[in-house]
Amino acid sequence: MRVVDLIRRKRDSQGLSREEIGALIDGYTRGDIPDYQMSAFLMAAFLRGLNRAETAALTEAMLHSGQVLDFSDMPGRKVDKHSTGGVGDKTSIIVAPIAAAGGLRVPMISGRGLGHTGGTLDKLESIPKFNVNLSLAEFRRVLHECGCALIGQTAEIAPADKKIYALRDVTGTVEHPSLICASIMSKKMAEGIDALVLDVKTGSGAFMKKEEDAAFLARLMVDTGRRMGKRVVALLTNMDQPLGRMAGNANEIAESIDVLSGGGPEDLRELCLVLAAWMFVLGGRANSVDEGKKIAAGLIASGKAKDKFREIVRLQGGDTRVVDDPRRLPQAAHRMEIVSPSEGYIEATQCEQLGIACVVLGGGREKKEDSVDPGVGLEFHKRVGAPVHRGEPLCTICYNSEARLDEARRLVETAYQIGPRPPATLPVLVSRVIGV
Amino acid sequence: MRVVDLIRRKRDSQGLSREEIGALIDGYTRGDIPDYQMSAFLMAAFLRGLNRAETAALTEAMLHSGQVLDFSDMPGRKVDKHSTGGVGDKTSIIVAPIAAAGGLRVPMISGRGLGHTGGTLDKLESIPKFNVNLSLAEFRRVLHECGCALIGQTAEIAPADKKIYALRDVTGTVEHPSLICASIMSKKMAEGIDALVLDVKTGSGAFMKKEEDAAFLARLMVDTGRRMGKRVVALLTNMDQPLGRMAGNANEIAESIDVLSGGGPEDLRELCLVLAAWMFVLGGRANSVDEGKKIAAGLIASGKAKDKFREIVRLQGGDTRVVDDPRRLPQAAHRMEIVSPSEGYIEATQCEQLGIACVVLGGGREKKEDSVDPGVGLEFHKRVGAPVHRGEPLCTICYNSEARLDEARRLVETAYQIGPRPPATLPVLVSRVIGV
Repeated sequence: MRVVDLIRRKRDSQGLSREEIGALIDGYTRGDIPDYQMSAFLMAAFLRGLNRAETAALTEAMLHSGQVLDFSDMPGRKVDKHSTGGVGDKTSIIVAPIAAAGGLRVPMISGRGLGHTGGTLDKLESIPKFNVNLSLAEFRRVLHECGCALIGQTAEIAPADKKIYALRDVTGTVEHPSLICASIMSKKMAEGIDALVLDVKTGSGAFMKKEEDAAFLARLMVDTGRRMGKRVVALLTNMDQPLGRMAGNANEIAESIDVLSGGGPEDLRELCLVLAAWMFVLGGRANSVDEGKKIAAGLIASGKAKDKFREIVRLQGGDTRVVDDPRRLPQAAHRMEIVSPSEGYIEATQCEQLGIACVVLGGGREKKEDSVDPGVGLEFHKRVGAPVHRGEPLCTICYNSEARLDEARRLVETAYQIGPRPPATLPVLVSRVIGV
Repeated sequence: MRVVDLIRRKRDSQGLSREEIGALIDGYTRGDIPDYQMSAFLMAAFLRGLNRAETAALTEAMLHSGQVLDFSDMPGRKVDKHSTGGVGDKTSIIVAPIAAAGGLRVPMISGRGLGHTGGTLDKLESIPKFNVNLSLAEFRRVLHECGCALIGQTAEIAPADKKIYALRDVTGTVEHPSLICASIMSKKMAEGIDALVLDVKTGSGAFMKKEEDAAFLARLMVDTGRRMGKRVVALLTNMDQPLGRMAGNANEIAESIDVLSGGGPEDLRELCLVLAAWMFVLGGRANSVDEGKKIAAGLIASGKAKDKFREIVRLQGGDTRVVDDPRRLPQAAHRMEIVSPSEGYIEATQCEQLGIACVVLGGGREKKEDSVDPGVGLEFHKRVGAPVHRGEPLCTICYNSEARLDEARRLVETAYQIGPRPPATLPVLVSRVIGV
């Protein structure tokens, strides 16, 4: 097998066998196949596509490029949740402790902010001293002790994905369903889980703007997970506007604590209950989504979910005082209100633009080497469909650097579309569940 | 401009400007753009295509990556001929001295064998001591002194092409008309020529098997050359069977000397006369192709073309005695006749397979590092349409290594298709002229 022949076959829309894809990924991970051949292959795969069997083979090869964790010695079903990313999407931080409080084990390996979206690891790190860089032994110990641990991808987990992801980022081969699927699922399957709930975002603030593209990706991930013997469902959820009222790292931790304390905005609370409910269903703790939601709501009302979060923070070295006093979280030095220029209704938001405004403020990275400013972010006052008066606040910008304010302000101001009539239909938070 | 954005735009079928393509090629030649980004771009260009303006911009950028020769101080029009490659295609070796003998200057930069095709440089090197690696100063001196010089691509000529060609070879991005056009034309335009005759091969022994693909490439090269202010025509010529009676390096030099001496097979002689005629027409030495052919035939008959060849061999350090006694060329130690297994007519030949047989014998390279055996090759006794008796010789294999004979023999034996009736139509040697 010559690598160039595999590239040529994919280029000519021919299928590759499981063994051929395996040899390609193994060779690349070992360093025998150079970057320039892998990038040509990735572009050919991007433009010609990979079928379901090829996507599964790619995922499997990437999974087995590293260590596959095994927690079968620990009691309880291991269930995780993964979101494809959006603006203000802090559900992992809320759902993981709820699920663990309800008796599941949640071995969650998360990511950093990507493009205009925030990342669970960056958010958690706004809790003083919270350590997301646990070794796999520490990961196991925390998971064993409290039923949940939240870490970043270690060198042992799917190294092929780490290498391929970095290459895709600079060769224009990011936004392809098969490549996204293989990247996400190779990491998730390495977690040693029995079941996985996928939250696939769609809308102006998601990577998949169109629902049909999101549904395609969702179906692909569900199929791929099931081929590997896991229970998987995917929820298609709306990202035409930010989730909840907060975007930014410390901001989102504070809002997560609100929800875990029984408060928080309705859309965020509802989505968290649904996601936790599906985790309970797949983990055998509930017979229906309604039952699962009741369990989740009960765990919030009793304070057990918040206690679990406090325990996770403590075991991962973080300052637990923030859990009861979120004002201890880093705060931006300045606040500026952006007000409505006219009377009317919020017709739509350019949700991705609001995410970019957060990155511009320092809440995300423009280059990989950038560090993140935990205190900055946005606070949203109006949701799509809401009536507004002229001069009424739409959004508050929490910022530290005057130099970054102008661009962020321009982005926020132009992200809101105000019209004379309420928009015809409001998007449904969860539009479909795929895989049931 | 970020390179990844240019890759993404080409990936999404968007056009790139002249400046953008220029920046890409300059950055890659300087080493600022890594191989893995260039290979992703090349695959995107391969699958999405480049329009005529983009192809011209790519050619121009590759041309200007190195030195562009200028022979305007020398009298006479500078005219070259280039073939896209086939089996037994030794026309450069015959046509260059004819054109120079007729008063044109021919600054010819040629290539090595590629895939199943032979290369002018490899053939010339079968003449003892013939030096194809002249410096540009020596190239100029020989061109000045005798009107023709035949060398390989130096480090100064289109270095972007050298680097990109090596990358295309290992990333499955060779066979695309725009990329082929840019590679050929960037080198040819660097020769400081006024006019160019292109011989674009089509048929089972060519890279472009289908006439429509060959015509597309021909039109693209003609357009690209003309955008740069050169006189260019392209002849579409048939490569469904080998050209002439000989394939192999020394074999083809011997046959070239035959033609320059007034003999040689009719198809080869005819194509050489037509190609030389077009060079005379574009170079202003003839008013019509017929007149050009008469001039060329006269230069052969008078011995002036052969004298010119002898002069080139001498000035490039070669042993001129071979010109009058081709038996001094390297000869294979053994010969084996392949005979017809049945009575009938030659219906077709798998021409590419005959080219591969030559490579297998050692006449070409399977890997870049391989050296070439000058004496081996094939001698063809029957052309398509010819009647054959059972046991009558079809082809003679000239070989040195028994180890290589078996595979070559199998390739030759299965390359001939014998049928009971003569084939319906014989292919026309020159089917179309593009650019008139």
